[in-house]
Amino acid sequence: MSAPAAIPDTPTFVTHLECGMTGERLPADTLQNLSPKGWPILVRYDLAGVKAALTKELIAGRAPNWWRYRELLPVRRTENVVSLGEVMTPLIPLPRLARRLGVTAEVIVKDEGRLPTGSFKARGLALAVCMAKELGVEKMAMPTNGNAGAALAAYASRAGIETVVFCPDDTPAVNMNEIALQGARLYKVNGLINDCGKLVGEGKATAGWFDTSTLKEPYRIEGKKTMGLELAEQLGWEMPDAIFYPTGGGTGLIGMWKAFAELEAIGFIGSKRPKMIAVQASGCAPIVRAFEAGERHAKLWENAHTVAAGIRVPAAIGDFLILDAVRESGGFAIAVEDAAIEQALKDVATEEGLLLCPEGAATYAAYKQALGDGRVKKGDRVVLFNCATGLKYPMADGGKPLDRHGSIDYSKL
Amino acid sequence: MSAPAAIPDTPTFVTHLECGMTGERLPADTLQNLSPKGWPILVRYDLAGVKAALTKELIAGRAPNWWRYRELLPVRRTENVVSLGEVMTPLIPLPRLARRLGVTAEVIVKDEGRLPTGSFKARGLALAVCMAKELGVEKMAMPTNGNAGAALAAYASRAGIETVVFCPDDTPAVNMNEIALQGARLYKVNGLINDCGKLVGEGKATAGWFDTSTLKEPYRIEGKKTMGLELAEQLGWEMPDAIFYPTGGGTGLIGMWKAFAELEAIGFIGSKRPKMIAVQASGCAPIVRAFEAGERHAKLWENAHTVAAGIRVPAAIGDFLILDAVRESGGFAIAVEDAAIEQALKDVATEEGLLLCPEGAATYAAYKQALGDGRVKKGDRVVLFNCATGLKYPMADGGKPLDRHGSIDYSKL
Repeated sequence: MSAPAAIPDTPTFVTHLECGMTGERLPADTLQNLSPKGWPILVRYDLAGVKAALTKELIAGRAPNWWRYRELLPVRRTENVVSLGEVMTPLIPLPRLARRLGVTAEVIVKDEGRLPTGSFKARGLALAVCMAKELGVEKMAMPTNGNAGAALAAYASRAGIETVVFCPDDTPAVNMNEIALQGARLYKVNGLINDCGKLVGEGKATAGWFDTSTLKEPYRIEGKKTMGLELAEQLGWEMPDAIFYPTGGGTGLIGMWKAFAELEAIGFIGSKRPKMIAVQASGCAPIVRAFEAGERHAKLWENAHTVAAGIRVPAAIGDFLILDAVRESGGFAIAVEDAAIEQALKDVATEEGLLLCPEGAATYAAYKQALGDGRVKKGDRVVLFNCATGLKYPMADGGKPLDRHGSIDYSKL
Repeated sequence: MSAPAAIPDTPTFVTHLECGMTGERLPADTLQNLSPKGWPILVRYDLAGVKAALTKELIAGRAPNWWRYRELLPVRRTENVVSLGEVMTPLIPLPRLARRLGVTAEVIVKDEGRLPTGSFKARGLALAVCMAKELGVEKMAMPTNGNAGAALAAYASRAGIETVVFCPDDTPAVNMNEIALQGARLYKVNGLINDCGKLVGEGKATAGWFDTSTLKEPYRIEGKKTMGLELAEQLGWEMPDAIFYPTGGGTGLIGMWKAFAELEAIGFIGSKRPKMIAVQASGCAPIVRAFEAGERHAKLWENAHTVAAGIRVPAAIGDFLILDAVRESGGFAIAVEDAAIEQALKDVATEEGLLLCPEGAATYAAYKQALGDGRVKKGDRVVLFNCATGLKYPMADGGKPLDRHGSIDYSKL
């Protein structure tokens, strides 16, 4: 008995691209950034075709990585698949903390830190790189708070595509080192991620790079969509009651929402949806402010600051797609203080043995807060997204010195 | 269609324990450290029973984690399984470097950095903690160079077991922080890992802790054994030609060798074995020295030093088990310079987008060296073990400053 092929050689069912705001139809298999009207682009599939071709049993027999959903992904030719050993990220319940909170349903962390380059950014950037390869791109550029740049660098180097990455100059050294070691040309910019983004846009014509910024090309959403496909399959094609998602650019939230719609269209799930809950830090909460004001677009957040650098995103071009999904789902947007994030990180590590990243810890802090104000119930089965490995983040020093040449009182250790 | 259970509820086939040196039989289901004669203990199974109960098809239908091999693991009661979301670690080929080396067969990295706590230590410590829970242990202690301590802390905290961990005082901060955050009491010792190990042994009676040091309890080998089981299944139950394994305490090498014997006994593989190649750093190479001298035991390596802290292990209690396996397999032990390790780390990251840990990079350096001296051939299919995520390690700084307020010449970026 041989192991299943890592990449099933099946067709894609992509029919066309579509402006996320106006619905304007654009051709597939052409290089696209924003739509002609300046909005993010969505990828559309022949879902009737997928429904006829794909079964749950077929998927179950494939290798445990996101290429098992190949029919719902945009890559046409298998030779353009760029892989760094993707895995289905595990679901890890928090039984000890659930007991402490008096919760009766499961509280589950989906640990995205197990992906290549240690974060969920691998999903989006892998697909962006595959499609860039398929469409003949030779040079890609992006702004990053760290993890996206690392994922782009890794997948692009593997594909033989050159990369130029811009990050805020206070990005942690571990992220900068990772990006540079993995073959990108990295620039440290005196500004935030939206400032970096401007440089990418400005330099495009002169430098000849493809702008891979969040939602400025169509395929990162398709990669992030696999979080929703995977989660649904792992839960036996049952939806949880709520999903807490750390929200910067929001690609993952938008992607999961799209995944659920596609899964319903192919008959894999019913009409039940989880409440989509956008988690932000109180020092940078443009989506929360827009949600509470009943607006469809979010204003730029001035003087953004938070320990959770990955969600320090003052402006998101897909704000309306995030807010639409949150509202349609009956969910909400919620902001948490940095102190609550730090406490959550410690609680989950010490009690459950699970070291979250600050953005992942923010989702646990938000869950506690929403339990407290009644917006989620003790009987709700919730999924918290830990978007990256906790090992990438500087933390308080640990350990007490012990002199092995001295006299040690072991009864006190 | 529901997802397969994360932990299949099947029996274990453990019959007894056995001294790894003398073969003396010891009862299962009792707490054991070293054998009465002072040697590491091996776990034995009713392999005829396993053969009758287990098929490749049965395994293929189970969730993609090491509990799919439950019949070959020692935990009796499912409630004693402690899990942090294990995954089958991916096999990642290095096609660009293989081409550059003129190699005609696959060069594959098995990336153990995807496991809980970011290293292969999770395998051994998960099983040690499960069995400690099953046998009623309340407090565990161990010496560590970093990753083992992190894995013990995480799994034990999750199991509600107290931990005391000792590490050399020059252990990287990221490791110490991780251990402490995950709930262990951590002591920084002025010495190397064998000095830390002495403290664990000395304090045992007074402090009442269970000594979880490498090979001083029977179950870490059983956990590490899953590397061999998993690798065999992922390669379609075909053995590779050679396995390059970074060797400190050697539990994984011993465990894989045991796995292959058990797989042959249950009829899953034939008699072909990979050459087992123990990789050490030239600044700490006790196994290499013993291998070359034709000895069965290794002398303590004085003044051990290497950038690959995980293999800075001056003395290994299971030296004879490592050397036996290496020799029986037709393999060898090989030492690489720190400069070669650092170059290997850069080459694999830049060319293949894969950031190895220094110990993992040592296996690539060793592979190149062995290709050069003819001990492996260009047609040999080899597996290199990357034992931990590269993100845990301090690396050279990256990134060039860019002033967004200045005039930027994009044609030069």
